[in-house]
Amino acid sequence: MTFIEKLSAAWAAHDSLLCVGLDPDISKFPPHLQGQPDAIFIFCKAIIDATADTACAFKPQIAYFAAIQAEDQLEALCSYIRVNYPQLPVILDAKRGDIGATAAQYAREAFERYGADAVTVNPYMGSDSIAPYLEWPDRGTIVLCRTSNPGGSDLQFLNANGRPLYQHVAQLVAEKWNTNGQCALVVGATFPNELAAVRTIVGAMPLLVPGIGAQGGDVAATVAAGKTADGCGMMINSSRAILYAGQGEDFAAAARTVALATRDAINRCR
Amino acid sequence: MTFIEKLSAAWAAHDSLLCVGLDPDISKFPPHLQGQPDAIFIFCKAIIDATADTACAFKPQIAYFAAIQAEDQLEALCSYIRVNYPQLPVILDAKRGDIGATAAQYAREAFERYGADAVTVNPYMGSDSIAPYLEWPDRGTIVLCRTSNPGGSDLQFLNANGRPLYQHVAQLVAEKWNTNGQCALVVGATFPNELAAVRTIVGAMPLLVPGIGAQGGDVAATVAAGKTADGCGMMINSSRAILYAGQGEDFAAAARTVALATRDAINRCR
Repeated sequence: MTFIEKLSAAWAAHDSLLCVGLDPDISKFPPHLQGQPDAIFIFCKAIIDATADTACAFKPQIAYFAAIQAEDQLEALCSYIRVNYPQLPVILDAKRGDIGATAAQYAREAFERYGADAVTVNPYMGSDSIAPYLEWPDRGTIVLCRTSNPGGSDLQFLNANGRPLYQHVAQLVAEKWNTNGQCALVVGATFPNELAAVRTIVGAMPLLVPGIGAQGGDVAATVAAGKTADGCGMMINSSRAILYAGQGEDFAAAARTVALATRDAINRCR
Repeated sequence: MTFIEKLSAAWAAHDSLLCVGLDPDISKFPPHLQGQPDAIFIFCKAIIDATADTACAFKPQIAYFAAIQAEDQLEALCSYIRVNYPQLPVILDAKRGDIGATAAQYAREAFERYGADAVTVNPYMGSDSIAPYLEWPDRGTIVLCRTSNPGGSDLQFLNANGRPLYQHVAQLVAEKWNTNGQCALVVGATFPNELAAVRTIVGAMPLLVPGIGAQGGDVAATVAAGKTADGCGMMINSSRAILYAGQGEDFAAAARTVALATRDAINRCR
């Protein structure tokens, strides 16, 4: 089963477009977890168990693990999801970008070491920096297109030959890089008009959409702009708003409440 | 001492613009090292000891370590350089790029965990994806501008408001992001005309220049296009041509021979 097939099955099985982002910042953990050696694993495992049936995917952000030598806990979490929730794809949020020989190593990191179903990558270095990921036929390659942060406009919104750079990226991916149907795009929820423009360019290609929740993107506008004809086509990510919904020993229950509410808010607009 | 000061001192002390790239691919190691559990450390340590006096910097490429769970060996190598060759800056080649909160974690990874003097970053996500690195005042932030790979032209050479995208990046870095003199740029040796264009835009800002050696860039054209008025201003990187110069037990001596020849070839053109 390919990444796109697995994702499509998860959309249907869980009736959800919600992607739960795992950005574990220990300083924001409930007090009773602080200081435990495997606090990240304990915290994220609880979040995963509490939210799996509300989600279509999990997206661990590797920087939070790499900063503190916790790659072993990331491996354990990816394995935990694979064993216990095999219907849910794991998206490694790594935003890698490098020349071919090095990109091949990053692909091994994501797909072999962590066993991820998909990885996020940066398009700035062009086609041969993306090709090594595409050599893994059952995995997904999710290319940054229009990001949700304020500085995203610095380059992505530059007018290149009559239209903004991010639209060139969308077209490159749709017409050249997505030869085997393995690609998806990152398009932030903070710009619904641009989300709609990308949807027009890429047809039914899945979009990973960060920026709702803590970053303030509007759910109704996001869904209206980005959904496909069948009301799917998106992994709408929320990380901090879910992870840190509660600060007590019941943090996982609080996370579940927010995840359910987010899933339902999305579904009301589909 | 800041990264730029340390680099400038190394240029002078070693009379060298050569940056030795550490891209340790075990499958290319000499047979007698294959199968050893810490083969990467042994190999890279030998390369470092054999080439340190020929170089102005070392540049480990993190993907080669991350693909095979060898972050501990990367930590050990960075520490080894810091202790034994404190005059030589360590550039962590990671090409990270993410939003602010996540970029702060990547900055910790590079500067705190690995103790790197500088890190390579990707500009696609714009100013707030760069700012967290700049908060480390004594470290360097080396921004991808014009990369040496064939696909680099896909986006970097797009005409945006009358000039190619990579020149916008050079100007953004020179005029907006380099407020404290911490920045450098990556510009490939495979495009001397573009190297010259970047040099004109950024003044004396240091340039990290990959693409000579295995990638085929011409040394004389590179130095002529990229040097500053004082004959410095560049870290000219060579990785594979040095690392894999020999395949026997004397691989480090073979690497030294190539490193010396590369340094001298560069110096003849300064």
